[in-house]
Amino acid sequence: MKVGVLTGGGDCPGLNAVIRSAVRKGVQEYSFEFVGVRDGWLGLLKNDVVPLDISSVRGILPRGGTILGSSRTNPFKHENGLERVRETLAANDVDALVVIGGEDTLGAATELSRQGIDLVGVPKTIDNDVSGTDFTFGFDTAVGIATEAIDRLHTTAESHMRALVVEVMGRHSGWIALHAGVAGGANVILIPERPFDIDEVCEQVRRRFEINYAPIVVVAEGAVPKEGQLVVKDRSLDEYGHVRLSGIGEWLAQEISARTEKDARTTVLGHIQRGGTPSPFDRWLATRFGLHAIDAVRQGDFGCMVALRGTDIVRVPLAEATAENKVVAAPLYDEFGVFYG
Amino acid sequence: MKVGVLTGGGDCPGLNAVIRSAVRKGVQEYSFEFVGVRDGWLGLLKNDVVPLDISSVRGILPRGGTILGSSRTNPFKHENGLERVRETLAANDVDALVVIGGEDTLGAATELSRQGIDLVGVPKTIDNDVSGTDFTFGFDTAVGIATEAIDRLHTTAESHMRALVVEVMGRHSGWIALHAGVAGGANVILIPERPFDIDEVCEQVRRRFEINYAPIVVVAEGAVPKEGQLVVKDRSLDEYGHVRLSGIGEWLAQEISARTEKDARTTVLGHIQRGGTPSPFDRWLATRFGLHAIDAVRQGDFGCMVALRGTDIVRVPLAEATAENKVVAAPLYDEFGVFYG
Amino acid sequence: MKVGVLTGGGDCPGLNAVIRSAVRKGVQEYSFEFVGVRDGWLGLLKNDVVPLDISSVRGILPRGGTILGSSRTNPFKHENGLERVRETLAANDVDALVVIGGEDTLGAATELSRQGIDLVGVPKTIDNDVSGTDFTFGFDTAVGIATEAIDRLHTTAESHMRALVVEVMGRHSGWIALHAGVAGGANVILIPERPFDIDEVCEQVRRRFEINYAPIVVVAEGAVPKEGQLVVKDRSLDEYGHVRLSGIGEWLAQEISARTEKDARTTVLGHIQRGGTPSPFDRWLATRFGLHAIDAVRQGDFGCMVALRGTDIVRVPLAEATAENKVVAAPLYDEFGVFYG
Amino acid sequence: MKVGVLTGGGDCPGLNAVIRSAVRKGVQEYSFEFVGVRDGWLGLLKNDVVPLDISSVRGILPRGGTILGSSRTNPFKHENGLERVRETLAANDVDALVVIGGEDTLGAATELSRQGIDLVGVPKTIDNDVSGTDFTFGFDTAVGIATEAIDRLHTTAESHMRALVVEVMGRHSGWIALHAGVAGGANVILIPERPFDIDEVCEQVRRRFEINYAPIVVVAEGAVPKEGQLVVKDRSLDEYGHVRLSGIGEWLAQEISARTEKDARTTVLGHIQRGGTPSPFDRWLATRFGLHAIDAVRQGDFGCMVALRGTDIVRVPLAEATAENKVVAAPLYDEFGVFYG
Repeated sequence: MKVGVLTGGGDCPGLNAVIRSAVRKGVQEYSFEFVGVRDGWLGLLKNDVVPLDISSVRGILPRGGTILGSSRTNPFKHENGLERVRETLAANDVDALVVIGGEDTLGAATELSRQGIDLVGVPKTIDNDVSGTDFTFGFDTAVGIATEAIDRLHTTAESHMRALVVEVMGRHSGWIALHAGVAGGANVILIPERPFDIDEVCEQVRRRFEINYAPIVVVAEGAVPKEGQLVVKDRSLDEYGHVRLSGIGEWLAQEISARTEKDARTTVLGHIQRGGTPSPFDRWLATRFGLHAIDAVRQGDFGCMVALRGTDIVRVPLAEATAENKVVAAPLYDEFGVFYG
Repeated sequence: MKVGVLTGGGDCPGLNAVIRSAVRKGVQEYSFEFVGVRDGWLGLLKNDVVPLDISSVRGILPRGGTILGSSRTNPFKHENGLERVRETLAANDVDALVVIGGEDTLGAATELSRQGIDLVGVPKTIDNDVSGTDFTFGFDTAVGIATEAIDRLHTTAESHMRALVVEVMGRHSGWIALHAGVAGGANVILIPERPFDIDEVCEQVRRRFEINYAPIVVVAEGAVPKEGQLVVKDRSLDEYGHVRLSGIGEWLAQEISARTEKDARTTVLGHIQRGGTPSPFDRWLATRFGLHAIDAVRQGDFGCMVALRGTDIVRVPLAEATAENKVVAAPLYDEFGVFYG
Repeated sequence: MKVGVLTGGGDCPGLNAVIRSAVRKGVQEYSFEFVGVRDGWLGLLKNDVVPLDISSVRGILPRGGTILGSSRTNPFKHENGLERVRETLAANDVDALVVIGGEDTLGAATELSRQGIDLVGVPKTIDNDVSGTDFTFGFDTAVGIATEAIDRLHTTAESHMRALVVEVMGRHSGWIALHAGVAGGANVILIPERPFDIDEVCEQVRRRFEINYAPIVVVAEGAVPKEGQLVVKDRSLDEYGHVRLSGIGEWLAQEISARTEKDARTTVLGHIQRGGTPSPFDRWLATRFGLHAIDAVRQGDFGCMVALRGTDIVRVPLAEATAENKVVAAPLYDEFGVFYG
Repeated sequence: MKVGVLTGGGDCPGLNAVIRSAVRKGVQEYSFEFVGVRDGWLGLLKNDVVPLDISSVRGILPRGGTILGSSRTNPFKHENGLERVRETLAANDVDALVVIGGEDTLGAATELSRQGIDLVGVPKTIDNDVSGTDFTFGFDTAVGIATEAIDRLHTTAESHMRALVVEVMGRHSGWIALHAGVAGGANVILIPERPFDIDEVCEQVRRRFEINYAPIVVVAEGAVPKEGQLVVKDRSLDEYGHVRLSGIGEWLAQEISARTEKDARTTVLGHIQRGGTPSPFDRWLATRFGLHAIDAVRQGDFGCMVALRGTDIVRVPLAEATAENKVVAAPLYDEFGVFYG
């Protein structure tokens, strides 16, 4: 059996841990051979693959990023994409794929699986928004980085009695904002799932100042105010739909400043949330995902995605996992109501 | 309603986060009053309680340890213990207790609950060995510290081609050793649940040296070799049954050194595993435990322990949670077999 | 003897360490009394002072920010400023001041000293741009945070073969950019002291891509391209002259992207560089500064600033220290030429 | 010109940073060739050298340990050592050596230089005990690790009102103990340079408990009590003279416990102090040392050691640098007297 491994979408701490454990298990326990596909789906379109053996995965467990490279290429948006994928697999005698990616990459995997390509998915994203799994790897690391930043900002805020807005990642879901906001003791947490009322936010900010504490506002990049409240001139989007630097965080600081007559500043955490060594939890989860994905390959159980349920690794149908994004449910958000404002 | 909060047993990152969220929720949402019991069960025996309000819990979320103090006192091992507990509760008009502790503290809570005292348990221990919950808070922080230590030791081991033994906490269970060992890329992981064969350990160490890598051995303090293999002269135990400094790690390094003729050294992580600021995961979990414990109190659902199941906080009967320690099951340990040796 | 302590300007890790050591030494060794002046010079204008004793400084050594609050107030820009300062000092029987601040705060101190007010200065700034001292405290912490961010960005850059621009603090001097850039292994380091040629920067970026590595560009917020190269529309400045979010980093990423046809992104580190617990070096330096400042007060050696020279703490005349900013000298910048591009 | 690089003695964060910067500068600026000598002086005795070029040093800046391996071999303690060193140099056409090491390695270098071998020394040691330089690299990292451990232990100590003893590295000098002890807010700091009075230590511990704080005692492994006070049974030493696990820290905890009737525990930090990624300061210093060492080689200025003086890198005669260990002077230790006890 020859297995191809690919990593797609934005990079994420733990990708290398999956690659390592999959190769270790496949080679040592089942005598599989492996190839690494370069730059996600792009490598399958361009027949860009490299051999992968135990020596290629030595020492990569604690390293962020992916030794295979990544891209946001979608094979179905390229001419004859499906055919070219088949050709690459055939040309390299690849029997099955382990596809490590987030919603976009796994969405393409779902379709390829329907078209008869044997593959197993592994959910990866710092955003934690893949359905069917309690957590994706990369998320715990991102929350750690964001929480550390919030910890740091508290003392600056207090020293200057100033409101500080921290914009974290999360275009469609507020997982990072909610977890880091709760862990960092934020006073306002704004997520895409719940359009916010800027008047209420300012009221919460004011109440905090009144008891002589400086408010910390954590906002997911995709959070939006209630209809009619957002009047932004320069909210440009990049090619992937990310809000550019003058995003929601900057807008919030300006509004807070104008409405409360208190100094307010913004910090946009940006790419530092996705880099660096994975947290122990993410290394553990990614390692287990790799091991279980290879077991699924071994058993010919294709079209599934490995997933965390409690402390177990289970398999869920890819189609189910990619049907919709996992978002923060209202009761969970409201659970922390006593800390807001 | 007046609620008493106590923290018992070894200190653990996240204790303050539970205290804070319980008080915030109880005061703000249900207008409860609170008292803090000093030094675990000891405070109930000695009527040593302090008022607790929102201002007493400000700023404590990221602080390790417990603002209430702790002890390993067991009320049932003191004369008229139960009676004195009742008296203290009555003298302070305390209607219900939130008891935050590990197996010993919760064991006493189970018995007190049987005797009619209204209380809710919260599982805490860096060892993760409380049944009925996926994880206890404190564990993720301890794993993080141990993993960071292993990360550091790799480069020292490689530079000197030396075997390094890391002794981590875990008298009865190997959770920290297994998680940190897997996350840190250890080559040998030894846990109390699985008596080890010193010949096999040395063989694994040898194989690692043969491919020009330096082995890292992670050992839980309570791990033991197979019957007949352990011959130690000075394995003294302290009052709580902890192995003192010349423990299993030191023994292992000596045996490895003698049998493989390679240099081997030991590092005993000790108390640094339980101190310092809690990890974001532990702050999140501890915060949720505190909120849910107060809901249980509010609903008069006593005799239970809050617990994590997947991403939900549930309640389990205290008697069930404290019936036996949660240990590492054989299949989980074996899951990582490809990395051993 | 009664000593007033004040902290002025932007907050900085280590301020509390100075306050603590000054109070400990003054009280224990010389039986001085202390008051804390609130919010920098503002507290002297408004007669806003608080008692300071040993119990007020317990536990603050590792805490970022300042327990006294800070502001950017300049007493000489307020009507009767000097007179009001004198009145506050007289009203509180303050004999001498310990003034902890950066160039602006120490500049005002220099003038007040000339006007006969007894004071000793302590240099603080994350920017390291105070003359007369090898290092200011706060700088090492800021470099640490920036270096950690660069470490993280490397793996993201490599995974996507993308140029990453990191904008760090430094309006007038490139100390943070240079130290963090060298420590983080950056490929381009741009500082205010050396206007850069955007063509050359792009050439360095290209060369890095050619050998299949992804370039990291570290830029101080105050760095500027050579005359005529900068054409920015929205380079707004805030009230303190800080470049707002769409600053030089964003401009650089756009230019690099447009000129090299490679993806380029920016991360603006912002306020996280000044918060959080001080590094051990900064705690050591700040602690020593506090001890030595009190010795200067004791000896009546006013009008000086404590300073680090090698491993010694010395005193330099305030006038000399504040005459001009300390900038990165050309030979030091050029010392690292082999790493650029 | 062909330059050999070797790293000797205990591993130390920053070794790789020196190797990298020396090779980068030598190759790019002066077209030098390089070989790496394996395992310190051992490689010169055994003719074990490897080619070193720019690609071999890529990515090693943040990595702990040494890619060249290390050993504690002394060429003068091997038969015909000097001759064999000469032969290896001749056989590989090596014109000059860059010798990176601590007192032992540099001591041998001093003698080899006297015998006519062209070399430049670079001071490395986490202990900071090399004369002639303000700091050695590796020290700042070690202090950082020790300080973080002390930070963690504070909360454990407070929660249990227990004395905690932290044993840090430092056989002959107390640099790590003093810097980490001051930065960590320790209450007792014990160093080899100043034999301590156990009665006084216990008095300091008692005073701390009296004001309801828990004492932290930092002790260098080489610290000793006054004559007659130390009665230890099992103080075994390893081959390098290191105190084994039942060392001074353990003895102190037992004495404190017995004399003050308070619980006392020990943590021995051990090898984690020397591993892992170097701190930014150490990367900066190590990088500069490498650059300047190559300049000395280029100028034929042999027999010297590069050294830090203030913010300058200077050269000092090796003989002077290795004449005696740099120890903590009494006035520096006494400077922090207000914090002791």
